[in-house]
Amino acid sequence: MKAYPERFSLSQKKFLKNLFPGSESSFDEGTLLSCGVDASRKHEKPLALVRPRNTVQVAELLKWAQLERVPVYPRARATNKVGGCVPVRHGVVVSMLDMNGIIDVDARDFVAVVEPGVITADLQKAVEARGLFYPPDPASLKISTIGGNISTCAGGMRAVKYGVTRDYVLGLEAVLPGGEIIHTGGRTHKNVVGLDLTRLLVGSAGTLGMITRATLKLLPLPETSASVLVGFRDLTGCLKGAEAVFGCGILPTAMELMDHNTIKALEMHSDVPWSTGTGGLLLLKIDGSGESVSTDLKRIGRALAAVETTFMESGSGDDQERLWELRRVISPAAFNLAPDKQGEDVAVPRGRVAEAIATYHRIGTELGVIVVCFGHLGDGNIHVSVMYDKSLPGQGENALLVKKRIFQCTLDLGGTLSGEHGIGLTKAKYIRMQLGEAELRLMEGIKRTFDPLNIMNPGKVV
Amino acid sequence: MKAYPERFSLSQKKFLKNLFPGSESSFDEGTLLSCGVDASRKHEKPLALVRPRNTVQVAELLKWAQLERVPVYPRARATNKVGGCVPVRHGVVVSMLDMNGIIDVDARDFVAVVEPGVITADLQKAVEARGLFYPPDPASLKISTIGGNISTCAGGMRAVKYGVTRDYVLGLEAVLPGGEIIHTGGRTHKNVVGLDLTRLLVGSAGTLGMITRATLKLLPLPETSASVLVGFRDLTGCLKGAEAVFGCGILPTAMELMDHNTIKALEMHSDVPWSTGTGGLLLLKIDGSGESVSTDLKRIGRALAAVETTFMESGSGDDQERLWELRRVISPAAFNLAPDKQGEDVAVPRGRVAEAIATYHRIGTELGVIVVCFGHLGDGNIHVSVMYDKSLPGQGENALLVKKRIFQCTLDLGGTLSGEHGIGLTKAKYIRMQLGEAELRLMEGIKRTFDPLNIMNPGKVV
Repeated sequence: MKAYPERFSLSQKKFLKNLFPGSESSFDEGTLLSCGVDASRKHEKPLALVRPRNTVQVAELLKWAQLERVPVYPRARATNKVGGCVPVRHGVVVSMLDMNGIIDVDARDFVAVVEPGVITADLQKAVEARGLFYPPDPASLKISTIGGNISTCAGGMRAVKYGVTRDYVLGLEAVLPGGEIIHTGGRTHKNVVGLDLTRLLVGSAGTLGMITRATLKLLPLPETSASVLVGFRDLTGCLKGAEAVFGCGILPTAMELMDHNTIKALEMHSDVPWSTGTGGLLLLKIDGSGESVSTDLKRIGRALAAVETTFMESGSGDDQERLWELRRVISPAAFNLAPDKQGEDVAVPRGRVAEAIATYHRIGTELGVIVVCFGHLGDGNIHVSVMYDKSLPGQGENALLVKKRIFQCTLDLGGTLSGEHGIGLTKAKYIRMQLGEAELRLMEGIKRTFDPLNIMNPGKVV
Repeated sequence: MKAYPERFSLSQKKFLKNLFPGSESSFDEGTLLSCGVDASRKHEKPLALVRPRNTVQVAELLKWAQLERVPVYPRARATNKVGGCVPVRHGVVVSMLDMNGIIDVDARDFVAVVEPGVITADLQKAVEARGLFYPPDPASLKISTIGGNISTCAGGMRAVKYGVTRDYVLGLEAVLPGGEIIHTGGRTHKNVVGLDLTRLLVGSAGTLGMITRATLKLLPLPETSASVLVGFRDLTGCLKGAEAVFGCGILPTAMELMDHNTIKALEMHSDVPWSTGTGGLLLLKIDGSGESVSTDLKRIGRALAAVETTFMESGSGDDQERLWELRRVISPAAFNLAPDKQGEDVAVPRGRVAEAIATYHRIGTELGVIVVCFGHLGDGNIHVSVMYDKSLPGQGENALLVKKRIFQCTLDLGGTLSGEHGIGLTKAKYIRMQLGEAELRLMEGIKRTFDPLNIMNPGKVV
């Protein structure tokens, strides 16, 4: 197979400049450096940056890239935490930010049709103005795009009740290496014709083709929502509280956990409402009609009365936003504990969360770093931040060791290396801890079917 | 490539008898005839029937079948309506009915682990006894199996709120042609490691491998449910009613439609509660806590008060069951209109349902057959029964012509040939009306990756 180009020839540059005139392409050193990094902080410099405005340009690009065997790295806001956007084999970075149209919001079909560069929060606002609802809400939703969300199968807080991005993608337009345009699924809410190419593309991290348009499923907008923040003495109390809520037959919209280190970090960062002696917190949200939210709120109160709590506060509207602000500032607040971080997003079976977190803490203590656990208890998807100080001897190595041991413990409990972020670049070396030879061989076969010359996001594991 | 065997040699028979001793294998003419038919009424006779009791036997079988290039037809209750279970290339029919264990129901993980031969309703009862809930409810749930439901990505009434089978499969154990055992996904509610083999197997209709175990996601059991049957003068009224319900921010569990011909068939079949002059019916279900169901019921009543209705009755418990009994008897009742049926399960974008049904009726009238439309309005997934009398000259041909025109109209409206049943054998000749060359080529490439010698359910389209 032809090698990837180390630099572009004049005619290759000319091709790109013709296809992407003016500011649609860039070969400038500074631009190339800045478009080679993502939220993982890994970086490589591509040979070119292009900004298509339509599917035809993407198709022409992928026809050429296939002929010349040029690596293609799709990118939008690059909030990816595992290096998914980093152009490790150079080639062309394709920014989808100029394909950001909301083509259609249809209140009768309960469908939105969008280009991949639309910011998720912008789509949510647009559909909510029509009484509709697009539930997936990754923490990055104000800055990340639908295309990125689809490529990673982004999750979010509301996944407990509403599921993840995969559950809202009805159809896709995508361009294959070689330039062929495909259409998968469609505009119907049910569809079982042929193999499920739509969900295969969701979460494929740009390794199979380039998504150029998505048809998304919408729901009716719930009238209102309310949230409850409950404190417990410790993690065990927290988990009992979660069981009590599920046990009363209510499926909360969101159910977030904060461990004692998260609490400590938040106490150092903001004014907090809970009482001293709180060693674990649950943050719950419910939604629905005004009346049903108010009755369910009472019901949750009664269920939690049977568990020992240290604190409880509920609210809707602005009061609710104040409660969620505490959840949103965890990531910055954690840096009060130590200056450096390794962040992971493992998931375990829901009933093993207590055991998992206790073990993660023990691993951290043994190796002298601080392990902060918080996140989506309702899905067993725990964000684990290993906080350390790399200026201290051994801490950098220990943080990496802690990470690997956390992965092993997670898998031993029947868990997974990633609930939301994917494998990408930074976890690629761990993937064989989880997947077997046969499963990897099938994935490679599927990859070859879509992308025989390996030009789509090469160097990554999905 | 080696041809499929037309009959088994003595040594091939001996292999199967050794691997499946006693009643686990059968070569008896009558048995073979009866296991070659499914709910499509199409039939072919296989060369053998086997009944594995465990995954190891399935793996040995698929190792041998690959070597000998013997077609393998997985089967359980064979409620498939499109010929998915029919052994068109003969070979071995593999009944999964003896692999019917509920291995595990875990109220803390919200997970069930089952073998494929478990009857869906049996699983539902088992989990409900533990306060848990498995939502997918295809109409066949009392007789069909989880394995069959997964293979077809079965839908059901509750899909409006809860989604389809795909949304509840967390992980699978499957055996590939050649005998290798793979494990996809897992026991966690979120998981984004590698390409999504789990959802690729869901709905693949036994064409990629044999599913031997499934890990399913469960929800907390809603405390109660209630239903409303509402009559309207005509279909337009019906659709306005549906919009009014969605418009008040409630996502009903189920939203079923019955057109004027359905009403006529039911009136000829049972005692019906609605008043004369009812030309369209909506049957709605909501679920949740007792209090929220009762407030949402009032809210729906208020929303529907703004639309002209001919009749309204709501109920829970036994009263609710009586309302749903009317829905369940539609299929037999339709034979009051004519003795023969072509049943389809097209889906259109939700807002195009009125237009679709009006056109389906017109097509039927033009060709002298009766078109009955009912089903999952909430998903735009309409069951269309073309009722005719094949003893009358031209009616058989006209029924087929009506079917093809209904397909064309459905696709013209942005719909799909199948919302739930799949393509299988009976719709295979229509698949190119919907899917393009590039999409089919990808599906063929994926198929070859899993099953290079085409031994899994050959002769079918997924």
